[in-house]
Amino acid sequence: MNFTPIVRDILSKYESDNPGTKANLARILMQGRLGGTGKMIILPVDQGFEHGPARSFSVNPSAYDPHYHYQLAIDAGLSAYAAPLGPLEAGAGTFAGQIPTILKVNSSNSWATSIDQAVTGGVDDALRLGCSAIGFTIYPGSEDQYEMMEEIREMSLEAKSVGLAVVMWSYPRGGKLDKAGETALDVCAYAAHMAALLGAHIIKVKPPTDVLWQPEAKAAYEKANVDKSTLAARIKHVMQATFNGRRIVVFSGGEAKDLEGLFTEIRGLRDGGANGSIIGRNTFQRPREQALDMLDKIIGIYQGKM
Amino acid sequence: MNFTPIVRDILSKYESDNPGTKANLARILMQGRLGGTGKMIILPVDQGFEHGPARSFSVNPSAYDPHYHYQLAIDAGLSAYAAPLGPLEAGAGTFAGQIPTILKVNSSNSWATSIDQAVTGGVDDALRLGCSAIGFTIYPGSEDQYEMMEEIREMSLEAKSVGLAVVMWSYPRGGKLDKAGETALDVCAYAAHMAALLGAHIIKVKPPTDVLWQPEAKAAYEKANVDKSTLAARIKHVMQATFNGRRIVVFSGGEAKDLEGLFTEIRGLRDGGANGSIIGRNTFQRPREQALDMLDKIIGIYQGKM
Amino acid sequence: MNFTPIVRDILSKYESDNPGTKANLARILMQGRLGGTGKMIILPVDQGFEHGPARSFSVNPSAYDPHYHYQLAIDAGLSAYAAPLGPLEAGAGTFAGQIPTILKVNSSNSWATSIDQAVTGGVDDALRLGCSAIGFTIYPGSEDQYEMMEEIREMSLEAKSVGLAVVMWSYPRGGKLDKAGETALDVCAYAAHMAALLGAHIIKVKPPTDVLWQPEAKAAYEKANVDKSTLAARIKHVMQATFNGRRIVVFSGGEAKDLEGLFTEIRGLRDGGANGSIIGRNTFQRPREQALDMLDKIIGIYQGKM
Amino acid sequence: MNFTPIVRDILSKYESDNPGTKANLARILMQGRLGGTGKMIILPVDQGFEHGPARSFSVNPSAYDPHYHYQLAIDAGLSAYAAPLGPLEAGAGTFAGQIPTILKVNSSNSWATSIDQAVTGGVDDALRLGCSAIGFTIYPGSEDQYEMMEEIREMSLEAKSVGLAVVMWSYPRGGKLDKAGETALDVCAYAAHMAALLGAHIIKVKPPTDVLWQPEAKAAYEKANVDKSTLAARIKHVMQATFNGRRIVVFSGGEAKDLEGLFTEIRGLRDGGANGSIIGRNTFQRPREQALDMLDKIIGIYQGKM
Amino acid sequence: MNFTPIVRDILSKYESDNPGTKANLARILMQGRLGGTGKMIILPVDQGFEHGPARSFSVNPSAYDPHYHYQLAIDAGLSAYAAPLGPLEAGAGTFAGQIPTILKVNSSNSWATSIDQAVTGGVDDALRLGCSAIGFTIYPGSEDQYEMMEEIREMSLEAKSVGLAVVMWSYPRGGKLDKAGETALDVCAYAAHMAALLGAHIIKVKPPTDVLWQPEAKAAYEKANVDKSTLAARIKHVMQATFNGRRIVVFSGGEAKDLEGLFTEIRGLRDGGANGSIIGRNTFQRPREQALDMLDKIIGIYQGKM
Repeated sequence: MNFTPIVRDILSKYESDNPGTKANLARILMQGRLGGTGKMIILPVDQGFEHGPARSFSVNPSAYDPHYHYQLAIDAGLSAYAAPLGPLEAGAGTFAGQIPTILKVNSSNSWATSIDQAVTGGVDDALRLGCSAIGFTIYPGSEDQYEMMEEIREMSLEAKSVGLAVVMWSYPRGGKLDKAGETALDVCAYAAHMAALLGAHIIKVKPPTDVLWQPEAKAAYEKANVDKSTLAARIKHVMQATFNGRRIVVFSGGEAKDLEGLFTEIRGLRDGGANGSIIGRNTFQRPREQALDMLDKIIGIYQGKM
Repeated sequence: MNFTPIVRDILSKYESDNPGTKANLARILMQGRLGGTGKMIILPVDQGFEHGPARSFSVNPSAYDPHYHYQLAIDAGLSAYAAPLGPLEAGAGTFAGQIPTILKVNSSNSWATSIDQAVTGGVDDALRLGCSAIGFTIYPGSEDQYEMMEEIREMSLEAKSVGLAVVMWSYPRGGKLDKAGETALDVCAYAAHMAALLGAHIIKVKPPTDVLWQPEAKAAYEKANVDKSTLAARIKHVMQATFNGRRIVVFSGGEAKDLEGLFTEIRGLRDGGANGSIIGRNTFQRPREQALDMLDKIIGIYQGKM
Repeated sequence: MNFTPIVRDILSKYESDNPGTKANLARILMQGRLGGTGKMIILPVDQGFEHGPARSFSVNPSAYDPHYHYQLAIDAGLSAYAAPLGPLEAGAGTFAGQIPTILKVNSSNSWATSIDQAVTGGVDDALRLGCSAIGFTIYPGSEDQYEMMEEIREMSLEAKSVGLAVVMWSYPRGGKLDKAGETALDVCAYAAHMAALLGAHIIKVKPPTDVLWQPEAKAAYEKANVDKSTLAARIKHVMQATFNGRRIVVFSGGEAKDLEGLFTEIRGLRDGGANGSIIGRNTFQRPREQALDMLDKIIGIYQGKM
Repeated sequence: MNFTPIVRDILSKYESDNPGTKANLARILMQGRLGGTGKMIILPVDQGFEHGPARSFSVNPSAYDPHYHYQLAIDAGLSAYAAPLGPLEAGAGTFAGQIPTILKVNSSNSWATSIDQAVTGGVDDALRLGCSAIGFTIYPGSEDQYEMMEEIREMSLEAKSVGLAVVMWSYPRGGKLDKAGETALDVCAYAAHMAALLGAHIIKVKPPTDVLWQPEAKAAYEKANVDKSTLAARIKHVMQATFNGRRIVVFSGGEAKDLEGLFTEIRGLRDGGANGSIIGRNTFQRPREQALDMLDKIIGIYQGKM
Repeated sequence: MNFTPIVRDILSKYESDNPGTKANLARILMQGRLGGTGKMIILPVDQGFEHGPARSFSVNPSAYDPHYHYQLAIDAGLSAYAAPLGPLEAGAGTFAGQIPTILKVNSSNSWATSIDQAVTGGVDDALRLGCSAIGFTIYPGSEDQYEMMEEIREMSLEAKSVGLAVVMWSYPRGGKLDKAGETALDVCAYAAHMAALLGAHIIKVKPPTDVLWQPEAKAAYEKANVDKSTLAARIKHVMQATFNGRRIVVFSGGEAKDLEGLFTEIRGLRDGGANGSIIGRNTFQRPREQALDMLDKIIGIYQGKM
């Protein structure tokens, strides 16, 4: 597994990390069909926690089985598979060493009365399950945002000391934020920036709209003539906002749309310089063959072939 | 004690657990009259904590004595006996090694001002008392649900590291949930799923009604044509929702009913593929002979003889 | 698994132990074909460590496989299987819960230059592997005997705190002892007594000869007219020397002999009140069918049928 | 690096600190163009956390890159560079040993619903990143002020035990305070005093106005005829309020103003005996050449040349 | 990276290990040109510790640079690279994730006055350096053998708990053993067996000669007609002695010989069922191109092509 210059370059930007963490980042960057390109596609399956099993899996009942997702991620040539504790415990033995895994260490659910998540896994779990990273969601803007940041601070420190990587899902939500604000360009860039400030290795945010939500930010954007006319331009700004490209940033799919809409969006992500995508529901909520076909096309887009 | 293929198959699904935990799961699966069938009946006696002694035991005063329950579980050929710290301390010496025990490590009471439980036991207690598992109740949906999940996360990690199994009672309650919601099919499946996501080895939920509570879930169930016409169909769905049968799920008795109603319900659980029942009040709130007779019939149902 | 009066009586003598330790003793006492009789047969396979693999297994090559011994102990209806770390790791998953295991936590080998053993396992290993006990060899009389005693003191304390039982192999050896002394009646009784003094739950010694080795002891035995005319009489004395029967004592086979000689010896052990036998080489150094046949007969002797 | 008498004198005032902490204070005091003068200029870049990336950096896009700030601080001959975890991780390897760094260990953001900050870094991080100090913001007067003080108490203790220095940003805010009060002379002096009381080695406050906010304080100031007619006089009072000059105090820039206004203010700080300035936005929100020019002039002022 | 049946089968034999350890074993088994075959070649570079730098590297001065060995192992398509702390620290950043590494955690040197090794690395080092395994040498037979076994016992437990694999070099040496004995068949098989008993995942021994050293062993071998006529037959016996093939065993090169002699030996290892080779001096003590050529041929042999 000789590294490509692009992977070598990305790893060189994690200059404070020990070789163990770099090795785990490298595993993700070298895995699957995008291995070596600096791009990645991660399959996250935490919808069951967030929306319950039936809303997540009844449309494609094979997906009730934790092994289904491991196998799908492997067969599709993806870069990593992310899930909470239980599903990893249910498959980590069978699939040990076949694909890098990310233990999602906090989780919310549909019945929550606060905008927060429970810590449901830890660094010790990640080590015993052979994971390459822990994953943590923060809700910048929520009433509980500082507690969440303090939780991930402690877990990050521990993870980094034992050679694991840290993935942060940064989802602005709650508090003063309204629905339009959650995906506004200034808010998305700010959320990505905060994850970088908190020491994340890989940052996951939503693709931003062209809304500018905070009045003071709007003024700054307009003064600086930040281009927000296309998705690619907005993604480029988000990459800039995360240490000018020194951190890996991946994007979730935006609003529900048809496949052509999704592919168009992926092209925008690619053209803006995103490191890749995290694609959950769009993957496991369609039949396996269709999912493999869709992922094949997305990989093609990131490879620049489509 | 040569294992049956069904027990071997169940154990093989706990692929991340150490042999110590597997041995304790095996002890429960091989104990009593259902030993080797993959089915189990657990006697839980934590009613005293929840409803006080008189409401729990005055109808059958022998049940005030902790030894009574041990002996009853043994004589009836049950699979395990679950109780809080005190009652186990009061009988664990006398009955050491005679029946697997589950230390219920959190407990609520009737006077509580929040929907939460106190942690009243721990892994060290379970080891010194010779227990095979710890048991923990979560109340998904309550204001304190995240703290409860964080408590069991830590205790699970510790329990698994010393070879104990983890049983979770998952009872949706509080917050946005109303009474009908607590036992709705979507809610019950979601609650069971969350326990699986949290890493439970054995999951205990209530038998679901045919209500669909959350509007978004209702839409998903209807779109996917999930059969909810019979209890067996609903149980089958709950089993599917807990990793497609990769985790042991047992059910409490539903609403108060006569014995025939109970037996009919047990047949529904069995036909839906449940791993068994947890039967507390129905057992110890009737005279011993009647309880033994009732349990004999329930065992017969799970054995497929009735 | 209702206990017999004899098992209940034995357990009652371990009055300072927690229920966890009692449960593990009970598991051994209730296992296999001698379950409930107060007698036990343990299969120990640490010959590979002591004498090397070929001297141990080449006569019956199936015995090179750690699974062979697990299966043999189960199929023969024995009470427990004892082995060092590696063989238990190699089979504890497959055979989890099928037979109580004893982790031999120290080991010697043929090339040793001192009369000592290395600590090669621990209480944490025993828990994760689902063992019921740790086993430890002391060499009373050797230059290193005090260090060995101090090692087992610490490990015993830890084992007892987490509900494990402690088995001690007490083999007088080295120092002032000569070959005849090692198996002399006074020495054997003294060795068994020291293990009891050190807090062992189960003590393993060799069947004593009628030699009296220490002059001062000889005087005492003669003064008190201790009967040493038969093996049964000598065993009775050893049982007396281990807290007058308050501790479980099992015996290894003596010198190599034919099967009839072995059965005669077992009858002597039984008649003297021994709790049973530890039979290693005699078991795995003959073909499986012959071993099963031999063990069947030994079980018959302990059951009083032969 | 032979120390000047003034540096020696300053260090002598930290008489309870261990040599490790003194060495780190010395590194800051001996660094850059003000090295040896007892004066210092610190570049803080935590605006991204407080105001988001675009409001902070879009006016000078090079500043999106964490390396930019390190290099600017080095090239300008500043004394130290302060930033949150992420930016230090992104540059600490490249710039290791080139300039003292201060890990800002707590951080707020624009969307906060309380006047508080999240702990986002720690002493372990500061050590592994080679920092000379930790920096912490307190908001005296806010609802959460006591929790913040308790947080820094614990972190200070830990920092001092491992030879790090402690910098406190003391910003009166929230609670009973109004806008005018936040920068009033009595409030500013009180805030600086509290940081000294809490054990800070270096204290950062805003330059005070001539407002006296608290009636009781006003009475005292008037009774004692405290001179507040000039900035220099007010700074002199703040220095007095921080142990009569026994602690290093640096000041942020006041309200937005033109460069001449800024230089005038710096002269006031100098003449009042301040130990220096912390200058963030004024530095990185203008093109690099202009920033270097501005800093050159400020250094000149502190050197007494302008 | 879908696994081959042979890799799946090997991993299934480590039935007590957590998925983390299995993943690290899988990484070694899937790496390089032998990935997926169940065979492996490991490059060990600890000669500098044992014999000093000039005796190790002066014949091929490029080998003084730790990066040389990493690159050679990668370019040759080997399975893993093993070295002490310093060389791994010197290259683990550059080569992070490119080849599995084994941290050799104990080391001897030429000036030693005892037959022992110093512990020179640990599990924490292995994690921060991204290693897949720790490696440890025992000298069965030496005066210090028990202390060595106790050291690896503790380190193994810790390594396994955090998902690392354990490699043991088992070299009989010292005490009663003479030179011929060190490589005798009975001694080699015993040494391999002891490493398996101690819980090693991968065992490294020397290819045995046809000498039988210990008289008691000689008798057993002759009685059992153990075939020792060819190297393949002897290797087969060693594999049998390590849990009948349940553990991975690799062999060092034997006595100095020409390349043809080496290739013949490798064929013997292959035909006897060895899992592969550890080849140090033969690799780095010849020019890089020659080394690559030699390794290419050895890989060809293990692939059954030569």
